[in-house]
Amino acid sequence: MKQISVELGARAYPIYIGEGLLADSSLLARHIPSKQILIISNEIVAPLYLEPVRQGLPGAEVHTFILPDGEHGKNLENFNRIIGRLLEYKYSRSCMIIALGGGVIGDLSGFVAACYQRGVKFIQIPTTLLAQVDASVGGKTAVNHPLGKNMIGAFHQPVAVIADTAALDTLPDRELAAGLAEIIKYGLIRDPAFFLWLEANIEPLLQRDRRALAHAIERSCLNKAEVVAADERESGARALLNLGHTFGHAIETALGYEKLLHGEAVACGMLMAADLSVRLGLLEAPAVNRIGALLAKAGLPDAIHPDASGAALLANMKVDKKARDGMVFLVLLKAIGEAVLTADYSKDALRETVNRFLS
Amino acid sequence: MKQISVELGARAYPIYIGEGLLADSSLLARHIPSKQILIISNEIVAPLYLEPVRQGLPGAEVHTFILPDGEHGKNLENFNRIIGRLLEYKYSRSCMIIALGGGVIGDLSGFVAACYQRGVKFIQIPTTLLAQVDASVGGKTAVNHPLGKNMIGAFHQPVAVIADTAALDTLPDRELAAGLAEIIKYGLIRDPAFFLWLEANIEPLLQRDRRALAHAIERSCLNKAEVVAADERESGARALLNLGHTFGHAIETALGYEKLLHGEAVACGMLMAADLSVRLGLLEAPAVNRIGALLAKAGLPDAIHPDASGAALLANMKVDKKARDGMVFLVLLKAIGEAVLTADYSKDALRETVNRFLS
Repeated sequence: MKQISVELGARAYPIYIGEGLLADSSLLARHIPSKQILIISNEIVAPLYLEPVRQGLPGAEVHTFILPDGEHGKNLENFNRIIGRLLEYKYSRSCMIIALGGGVIGDLSGFVAACYQRGVKFIQIPTTLLAQVDASVGGKTAVNHPLGKNMIGAFHQPVAVIADTAALDTLPDRELAAGLAEIIKYGLIRDPAFFLWLEANIEPLLQRDRRALAHAIERSCLNKAEVVAADERESGARALLNLGHTFGHAIETALGYEKLLHGEAVACGMLMAADLSVRLGLLEAPAVNRIGALLAKAGLPDAIHPDASGAALLANMKVDKKARDGMVFLVLLKAIGEAVLTADYSKDALRETVNRFLS
Repeated sequence: MKQISVELGARAYPIYIGEGLLADSSLLARHIPSKQILIISNEIVAPLYLEPVRQGLPGAEVHTFILPDGEHGKNLENFNRIIGRLLEYKYSRSCMIIALGGGVIGDLSGFVAACYQRGVKFIQIPTTLLAQVDASVGGKTAVNHPLGKNMIGAFHQPVAVIADTAALDTLPDRELAAGLAEIIKYGLIRDPAFFLWLEANIEPLLQRDRRALAHAIERSCLNKAEVVAADERESGARALLNLGHTFGHAIETALGYEKLLHGEAVACGMLMAADLSVRLGLLEAPAVNRIGALLAKAGLPDAIHPDASGAALLANMKVDKKARDGMVFLVLLKAIGEAVLTADYSKDALRETVNRFLS
């Protein structure tokens, strides 16, 4: 078992990474003083992993809330429904929420934990690769509003994250690849040695070799933890974690969040950011080819989904959480392993990049 | 103008107290770098004070959201409506929320500010005495759930609080008294000299003498600020601020939050807490008479509202945010100026106290 500490002072917490951890009751017991527990999960994950987790909680009052799978459930209605449940169970401020599932479950559960009686403890047991390397570090929680994704949320750190590499056995191939996109991102923005390791180890990762996965998860979490510790509330350096995300969100919005996984959209977005970086003279051209080759090997898209128009994309990029007073800041690359946040680019260059990646 | 600093490290903020501050545009300008501003107010306060505030914001894009007056508007529906408005206006993360009104407006606006895009800045301009001494310090924000008051919320500190004593001229007498109840509370829990001052100055306070009011607001905010700085998230000492609140909430719940103001219920609750303290041998009997006399002079109730039954009260006291794993902790008094949090009391003594205060 590997263990990382996310250093946030009084809000510091550990991430445990390893095989079979989900059923390790001593690990849960270490962080669960509460007798009132709500496990939130979904209809895909619960049949596979709810029982082992529940068995690790002897003597506690355990209730469950099982959602249908999918992003559409991450809304204020379900948030309100879960809060109502907690009140019906007469759960106090010392109750605990366990999020068992992917990013949707983690985001929604975390926001419930952030707001129930102004904040209760929660533990994340991410069961997708994306959630293990992304949602598990940083304390971002949120639900969607019909007018925008993740527009209602809070920063709320978990008391522990348990990333079980064995749980990835049941992950569909596309979701594995989507997780790899975020992993590759850490190499791109700040860890050139890790990018080299990923180029050399993409095959074992795709074959779900648990040692390779554990290493990739560990390095991703370490990188993210360092960034988050330095900038918990995303006022500066943390914005670099959004490489590919402004492009990616624009693609997702154009598609109505249905046809692409988040990681797939981000993969295309990272390639577009690299392309724009070359157009602006920030990045050397061969770097784009290396990035594209690695993403392609991982099975990730190298072009904008044909159902998204360039016009819709450009329109969507004008409203974004990364916008300050009307200007859209983008994360671009100066090298593989070095990112920069900038609004210093021409709309023409942006348009050229979008056009190049239209299918 | 008096100025207090609430010391919360990176989240420290000033409280300004004085006459006519609401229309002081330089004060607003000092804290408002944003060009996108939403003022949230209600139908009673807006006609009186919205224009002066708005005129203090030249050059900004200012929208307003005006709610009907009353506690019933402090819910997730209005929260969602305001978030929708912010998204329609395409307000970014650097926008700012101004809460102009009493506690309901402050709590709701603060929760919107806490959650919109995971947190934007907000300024409180409390226009009731209660909000000036209570909601303005501590960063508690919340909305109600049908199953419980303030059950959905967050800790989110404002960037500044502007308490205008002139705005209290238009406050109904009952609301003035309700504010005095919370002010008296600070004397009771930790400031015996202030309690003496209040006994000597209750008349000028009731006559709305602005110097007396400014002093009472300042000392209340100073006391609360010290407590909050030591315990931002209410894990310990901050709980003492709840003197009278567990009793008070039980009364309010029994009445459906309609017939009593929060401060009125708390006044009765403080007297009940004092009575129970005497029964338990914690407090000397004459202290209860002094507390009762001061509350009565302020025009506050000295008995439970006749529409609330003792049985309902006792039932309501079993579920409360102050309950830990089923036990209800109460704030009791060891002296005027010294409070203690305890679950060490008999149900019989509690019953006797409730019976004594039934009308």
